[in-house]
Parts: sequence; C-alpha cells; structure tokens
Amino acid sequence: MSLASLKPARAPFTFAHRTTCVKTSFIREILKVTENPAVISFAGGLPSPDLFPVDEVAEAAQAVLTGQGRAALQYSTTEGFLPLREWIAQRYASRFGLGVSPEEILVTTGSQQGLDLIAKVFIDPGSPVLVEQPGYLGALQAFSVYEPEFAPLAAGEEGPDPAAIEAALEPGRVRLFYTVPNFQNPSGACFSLAARKAAARASAEAGTALVEDDPYGELRYAGTELPPLKSFNPSTLMLGSFSKVVAPGLRLGWICAPREVIRKLVVMKQAADLHTDIFAQRLLHRYLSTTDFTAHLARLRAVYGKRAAAMVDGFRATMPAGTHCNRPEGGMFLWATLPKGVSSRALFEKAAAREVAFVPGTAFHFDGGGDSAMRLNFTNTPEDRIAEGLRRLASAVNEELA
Amino acid sequence: MSLASLKPARAPFTFAHRTTCVKTSFIREILKVTENPAVISFAGGLPSPDLFPVDEVAEAAQAVLTGQGRAALQYSTTEGFLPLREWIAQRYASRFGLGVSPEEILVTTGSQQGLDLIAKVFIDPGSPVLVEQPGYLGALQAFSVYEPEFAPLAAGEEGPDPAAIEAALEPGRVRLFYTVPNFQNPSGACFSLAARKAAARASAEAGTALVEDDPYGELRYAGTELPPLKSFNPSTLMLGSFSKVVAPGLRLGWICAPREVIRKLVVMKQAADLHTDIFAQRLLHRYLSTTDFTAHLARLRAVYGKRAAAMVDGFRATMPAGTHCNRPEGGMFLWATLPKGVSSRALFEKAAAREVAFVPGTAFHFDGGGDSAMRLNFTNTPEDRIAEGLRRLASAVNEELA
Repeated sequence: MSLASLKPARAPFTFAHRTTCVKTSFIREILKVTENPAVISFAGGLPSPDLFPVDEVAEAAQAVLTGQGRAALQYSTTEGFLPLREWIAQRYASRFGLGVSPEEILVTTGSQQGLDLIAKVFIDPGSPVLVEQPGYLGALQAFSVYEPEFAPLAAGEEGPDPAAIEAALEPGRVRLFYTVPNFQNPSGACFSLAARKAAARASAEAGTALVEDDPYGELRYAGTELPPLKSFNPSTLMLGSFSKVVAPGLRLGWICAPREVIRKLVVMKQAADLHTDIFAQRLLHRYLSTTDFTAHLARLRAVYGKRAAAMVDGFRATMPAGTHCNRPEGGMFLWATLPKGVSSRALFEKAAAREVAFVPGTAFHFDGGGDSAMRLNFTNTPEDRIAEGLRRLASAVNEELA
Repeated sequence: MSLASLKPARAPFTFAHRTTCVKTSFIREILKVTENPAVISFAGGLPSPDLFPVDEVAEAAQAVLTGQGRAALQYSTTEGFLPLREWIAQRYASRFGLGVSPEEILVTTGSQQGLDLIAKVFIDPGSPVLVEQPGYLGALQAFSVYEPEFAPLAAGEEGPDPAAIEAALEPGRVRLFYTVPNFQNPSGACFSLAARKAAARASAEAGTALVEDDPYGELRYAGTELPPLKSFNPSTLMLGSFSKVVAPGLRLGWICAPREVIRKLVVMKQAADLHTDIFAQRLLHRYLSTTDFTAHLARLRAVYGKRAAAMVDGFRATMPAGTHCNRPEGGMFLWATLPKGVSSRALFEKAAAREVAFVPGTAFHFDGGGDSAMRLNFTNTPEDRIAEGLRRLASAVNEELA
C-alpha cells in the first residue's frame, strides 16, 4: 500500500503554544541568496574550512577506533568523556588561573545545546531574561522556546555601560542575564574591565544566573586579553565551543557551572539526547592531546587577523560618507552602520543583485530595531574577495543614497 | 585568583518549575551496582559491543575525511545529510512499501532528541499524553520536561486491547499518543495487527499525534513482521534509530513525519543544537552504502536470537514456581513477573548481593505500579553468563520467598 493512497488524519493536530513563539528568521532568505557561488557572502558565521585540521582529525579518528573502538561506539555517560572534561578544566586554569573541577564541566552537543539546557533549567514562561541588543540570534531562538520576557541592554564598543548593567540587575528581578563579552556576535564588541566587574557583581547580588557565552575568546587578533566574568563571580555559567577553534561539524561544546547547576543540566541533557557523540568526544580529545593546539590557534589568529584588518581598512576606504564600522579586536564579525535613511533590509536586495550578502541588523533585535546596521563576517573570505565584496556593497549603498 | 577563594553569589538562583517535574530515576542507583565487573547485568539496555562494525566504521571515517573532509567538519543543514535521509526513505519503501520523501525525514541526535523535539512541538503544560504502561522511561523523562498530564494505557503480550485504545482516543481529548509497537522497552510486547489498525484509525479520527517509536523493528528473531502503524495512518510520526543496528555512541536517529510537522520540528531542532554531527552522518551513510547491511543485520539477529532463547528457556527452567516471563519475538528485553508478595525493589538488593542486576518494574510506571515485575536485558550477555545470572537470580527470589 502506498502512503500517498492513504487518507490523511481527519482532525488536524493541535500544536503547542510555543511553536508560535519561535520566529523563523530572515536568515533562511539570506541562505537562498548565498547558495549562488558567485555571491560573495559576508552573511554567514562560518569559520574557514581551509583551516580545519582534517589530516589530524583523520589520524585521531583512526587512533580512537583502533585503540578504543568499541567504547567509542557504545552508549556513554551524560556528563561527557572525562579526559575531555579534564582538558577543558585544565585550559581554564592555564588561560585564567581559574580553579575549575571536571565535575563542573558538562559536554554539550555544540554550545547551542548548552543554551537550550540552560533555558530548560532557568526559564519559566514570563521569566525576565536580560540580553544585549543587538544580541546573538541563536540564543534568542533557544530561549524563546521557553517563553521568557526579554529585556534589552544596549551595548557599545566596550560592552554595556556599567551603570546601566547595575540598573538592569536590580535584586530579585532578572532570572537570567545572557551575554557574549568577547567579540560579540553580531557587534564584535568586547566588554571593558569595568563592564565585566559590574556584570559579575550585580548578577551575584541579584541572584541572577549570569550566562557568559565565550565562543570567540581564543580568537583575539589585537589588544590584551581580559579576565572572564566568571573570575569575578564563581556562580557564572560559562559556555564554550570547539566550533570556531577546531571544527563546527562535530557539534562539541560545553557548559562550566557550579555543581548544583550541572546536576540539573545533566537531568535535562539525559532527556534531550542521552549524551553527546562519544566517538566525536574521544577523537577531539585525542586531537587536542597529541597535536600542537597552540600552534593551530596561532595559525587561525594570523589568517583571521589579516582578514579582519582587510575588512575594516577596506570598508573605511571604500564605503560612502556616513557609513561607519568598528574595529573588533577578535572574533568573526564587523558591525557597520549606514548613512541616515538607508535601510539595511532594503540594501540587502540591492546588494544581492550585485552578488554580495550580509545580515541586516534587524535579525539581532527582538523588537524590530537595528535597520540602520548590518553584520559582516570576515573569517570565511580571502582578502582579495573581501575587497571585491566591499566594492559591490559600496555600489549598492550609493544606489540607495542616489 | 583561584575560583575557590571567590565568594559565591549572595542570592540563590531561581530554577524553572519544570526542574521539579523530571524525576531522577532508580537507574542511577542501578548503575552503581553494575559498575562492579563481577556483576552479571541484565539491567542495561546496551547492544553488544562485540557486534559493532568497528573496522567498517574506521574505513568509512577515512573515506569521508579524505574525500569530503572539509564539508564533514563544517556547519551543515538542520534537516540532516540529504543522502542519509534518502537512504532512510528508501528503506521505508523496501521494508514496508511506504512512499516517504526525504523531505519527510529529519535526522536527530539519537532518537532521544526526536522525543524532545516532538514534545516541544506538541506538548503544552497539562496536555493529555497517552502512554503505554509499562512504558519507555526515556520518553516519560523527555515529555515530563514539558509538563503534560500522562494517561496510562495497559498493554498485554500483543499490545493494548483494541477496544481500550479506541476508548482512550476519544476525539479531541488526547494531544499525543506515544507507543513502541515492536518489542517494546520494557515489556518486549509486539502489537497485534488489530491493535495496530485500532491505534492508527482512532488517532487519525481524534486528531491525536500518533508517535510510533521503532528502535527494535529490525531485530526480529521469530514470527512474522507486521506493518507499521504509519501504513494505516500517514500522519503518524515515526521515530527510528541507528543505535541498536549500527552503534549508539554516534547518536544518530530520525523522525519521519508529514512535511508540516517536519517544518515545526526543524525550527525547534535549530534552536536545540543547530544540526546533528555531520561527520557522523556522512560516515554512517558511507558505511550503509558500501557494506552489506543485510548481512550485518542477519548477524545481529542470529546472536541476539540465541541469547533471547537462552534467557527465556533458562528463566523458565531455573526460577521458582509463581515466577513467569514472556517470550518476546525480537528486541532486547524480557518482562518477568514475580511470585505473589515478592517486591522487585526488595529483590534488587538481594540480587545485587549475589552480583546479578535487573531493572525493577516500578521504573517504567509513572504512578508507582509495577513492583511485581522486572525487565531483563539479554543482548549484552553471552549464553553461559545468562545461565549463571539466572541461577543467582533464582537464589535471590528463593531467599525472598523463604
């Protein structure tokens, strides 16, 4: 009997209320444009595949399957592969002098899963959640499933104003504060030391769960590393990711949090996917412990740093008056603002016609703002293509201005 | 500055209400017992690692990383690797004559994630969800996060009584009906043809989302294959898994559902983990399309079939009067009932002292029932150890009876 010949259900399904709360974003429309290989895409958030350590991953895969093959393919613990959790804990010690136990680390299926699990543990319908605006779209989507009330916190080049942070974090008011203090997606902004201390202290005093998402911290191309918020508030939940420094396809990230929080996250993770791919965890650990990871990071920083400089310098030299961009010290993104009266949504169409793409700023605002801004990615485009893409973009802006 | 020297948050966190709804199960206590290698464990739900195709997976990993290495490590689509979805659709056609499009397949991070995503799309707090009792613990946990009202449906050797199914599925009442019709975990029961038709028809007429979880359907050792519920109700959501037929460590499963449901599931999956490990998806597809999967399944069925028979025959020959077990035609589990007055929770302690373990029936009931029953796994224990384990278990039952 063919499925097509069967009659469908007579009564329609009833979907959960939350299915109306998660917006499908403009991102899918953008993807359609960037599928055309002639398009120079500043729209994505992809690391450069040329920098993936393919040979080393292949070697690690063989070593794991030869030595521990049956354990690498069997069910495993929800908490994650202990040697990998130990490696992560050790890295917190060597980078920041933070004394973190492996029991405070939960391996997640990418740090996106970390956002879902944290939302499960902290967000009730209507819970006040403070987020930077503009802010990371994936976090807004993950949290939206649990129907919080978002409160926006405006942020500049050095993160939000310390006084604004303290005002927003009145005791007992905000359930959770989500922030990306290093080279934020989308703005590239990096919290000042004062902003870090204010966020850490005010969260601790307010009983607010402080979520410090740090996928880009290892990708600094200029300036001096600043201490994480967690160093000023040990109850902070830190999210980490191997997506930007090794490879995103493996979906490997982690949460570092106090034991009582980890225990609750583990219950939620067990219900969500039992555990993260243990073959991937073991091969990543093998890769990290048998190759020169420091040299690999230096290579990433060298390539991405040059692309960042090419993007900023090219932007400032090419774009018409009234157009501005920042100079991020790390990460993957540039934030630009358009001349008065130019809408980035309208500009997107003109740019697409010229085979260049970006993400309009509205995608990173939950309240419809951001139309005068745009996000530009520089990690996945070589310098000569960056220059060409900026020429096309300038032409599109000029047409909008004309 | 060491983390230990920092003061913790002054105000405690506020956790979401749902954190009180998901029970941590007796399973963790059981795991402590089974960590001792001297213990013969009938408690787990593990496939036999001796049957994992380790060499073939290693070959597939090399082929993927050599040929498509950069794509296998980059971000990928939420829906999953198209050739793998095509393989799954083709298998529905060849096994059941079901005409399923790859667009009706969503690859998930194990079928456990399928349960979480389905719950996100269908369950509001208080939504009536019909489940077999005893039923699969992982589904109860996944659904509990979204705070449904569970309604129990009693099931015998051939699944629930068709009249009971029809009575339970009054139009407009039940939001979702979750069932494992082939060799259920924990009971090993297999739906009769009449039960399949009743569940399919009544769900369609009631507008109830019918969730047919089928991790064990390929593992039949006796009797004749019966058509899936989906062949009688095309709106059925079918869950599938590679965990029992290839390897669970890779965390690869899928949902097959109508396009309008897949679209909603994709939005939720994007928020949950962006996509499933694309390296694992590509290597699985390579493995499935370059090896003799039919011969691999035949090997699994031969080994597991002998273990199932050894368990049933041994149980009936060894256990004291008043103890009964079924004879499942497939899957991984046996369901046994104890003599009147013997509690499986109490028996567990006596059995642990004799170095044999099982899961008490209460673990599979959400209302505290099931204490006269127990689940026994046979896939991960060779026949001679099965015989020895049953002798130990009989001794424990005799002590309880004495």
